[in-house]
Amino acid sequence: MRELAGDVRHLSINAATLRRQLTLPGVIEACARRGIPAIDPWRDQVQAVGLARVTRQVRDAGLALTGYCRGGFFPAVDAAGLGAALADNRRAVEEAKALGATCLVLVAGALPGALAGRPTHKDIGLARAQVHDGIAATLEHARRVGVPLAIEPLHPMQAADRACINTLEQALDLCDALDPGRSGALGVALDVYHTWWDPKLALQIARAGRERLLAYHVCDWLVPTRDLVNDRGMMGDGVIELKRIRRLLEEAGYAGFVEVEIFSQAWWTRPADALLDTCVERYKGVV
Amino acid sequence: MRELAGDVRHLSINAATLRRQLTLPGVIEACARRGIPAIDPWRDQVQAVGLARVTRQVRDAGLALTGYCRGGFFPAVDAAGLGAALADNRRAVEEAKALGATCLVLVAGALPGALAGRPTHKDIGLARAQVHDGIAATLEHARRVGVPLAIEPLHPMQAADRACINTLEQALDLCDALDPGRSGALGVALDVYHTWWDPKLALQIARAGRERLLAYHVCDWLVPTRDLVNDRGMMGDGVIELKRIRRLLEEAGYAGFVEVEIFSQAWWTRPADALLDTCVERYKGVV
Repeated sequence: MRELAGDVRHLSINAATLRRQLTLPGVIEACARRGIPAIDPWRDQVQAVGLARVTRQVRDAGLALTGYCRGGFFPAVDAAGLGAALADNRRAVEEAKALGATCLVLVAGALPGALAGRPTHKDIGLARAQVHDGIAATLEHARRVGVPLAIEPLHPMQAADRACINTLEQALDLCDALDPGRSGALGVALDVYHTWWDPKLALQIARAGRERLLAYHVCDWLVPTRDLVNDRGMMGDGVIELKRIRRLLEEAGYAGFVEVEIFSQAWWTRPADALLDTCVERYKGVV
Repeated sequence: MRELAGDVRHLSINAATLRRQLTLPGVIEACARRGIPAIDPWRDQVQAVGLARVTRQVRDAGLALTGYCRGGFFPAVDAAGLGAALADNRRAVEEAKALGATCLVLVAGALPGALAGRPTHKDIGLARAQVHDGIAATLEHARRVGVPLAIEPLHPMQAADRACINTLEQALDLCDALDPGRSGALGVALDVYHTWWDPKLALQIARAGRERLLAYHVCDWLVPTRDLVNDRGMMGDGVIELKRIRRLLEEAGYAGFVEVEIFSQAWWTRPADALLDTCVERYKGVV
């Protein structure tokens, strides 16, 4: 198991962690200043500044991109909606390529309209079939462009509105169906927040192996948790066995970055420097 | 598939649904008045009135008990705590027998102290091992007394503090380990709220079969959900495919009651009659 305590060379910061405090150039600057070698930006953060400017700044700072958040949201109510989702995912693939991201993270999507509180239907089986087809179509394009796709299973409490892919096993079944050769073009982004509870986690991480493990995200599960989306904990403040899970990944062959991704109303109200310093300290101490 | 629209003969009311409005005698009276043939009381509700009085009232009203809520909470930090949990579960088995309940519902428990916001450790594997051992010991007693145990898998969002049994597959694995002969002494209580999202739900319901399906609970998943415990929806107000899931159960051999169990801050503020009338109406219309 790798030793993280001494430095930050395996640390990446998901830029959503600081989205209320800083623009993306501010995140890049704050990370570069601390020697943090990698980030994972969100599309809206990139669009707010402009793809060319971000690409240049990332390159100038010598940062790696451990992912690009996010493609996905494939389900729709009609052919026009399905087509629009595919077109948007093609654009996301191209942006990820321009940025030099190691993968495009896919949040599958779920019941159309549910994220806005108005689900148009309840057929989660249909949504899952549309996700299958959407990833299949996007994968063809992503292979040509050369950007791996990382399916991120989301916590079951987000199954209705954000992603109907809810376990690592389910994500890997999809990978095996669409990329049976384990080519490296399709894998998963494993986030401890979404998956720590899973009784089959160890088994499925071993099954995934190096070829499928494209990204690893950490934060913590607070007790009690007060919000289904924006109450993630700082590493060490919750109940997730971070070292045990990282060991499982590394035993399965994962040698990539450890990406901190914290959506938290509480942390978003703190100064950026305090938040980032705490991320570094906890990364070294408890991850 | 059974027709529920015409009457309430397969309806049961989990008494927690009305816990803020009525004492248990009030729930029994309100159900009996509507011809609802079954309830599922909670231990604290029984204790508030007295076991003998409840037993008599249930008998006089001719009600069936589709379960008794709840045994479980097996994990503990030391031998004394583990022993106390076993003793408490033996008492729960005996109370269930006195009441004539068809099963004792088990909410497994999880990290000791987590329900009070102070988890004493993070080892969910240890908690799961203690649940295995606790159910094994309780099962011996329950077999002698003649009360089936129904393991209730709880939603993964409750894995830290309420139950570390979080999928139907995991619950059935436990049943197969402890009761390989499918004797009827050990099975599951399937609640749509906890399990609707599961991509393996249909497969595991078929695996469970009549011998393992000891209780069926319904409510709905609201979009958005604003609380991890007390924001359940009335059937029809959320996104759960109630008829599809009931069909799966009945195809697997389930012929028991359909129990309405709604923990809801919103519904707890409504008059008991309005809540119960709505339960009946939705049971007939959308379940």
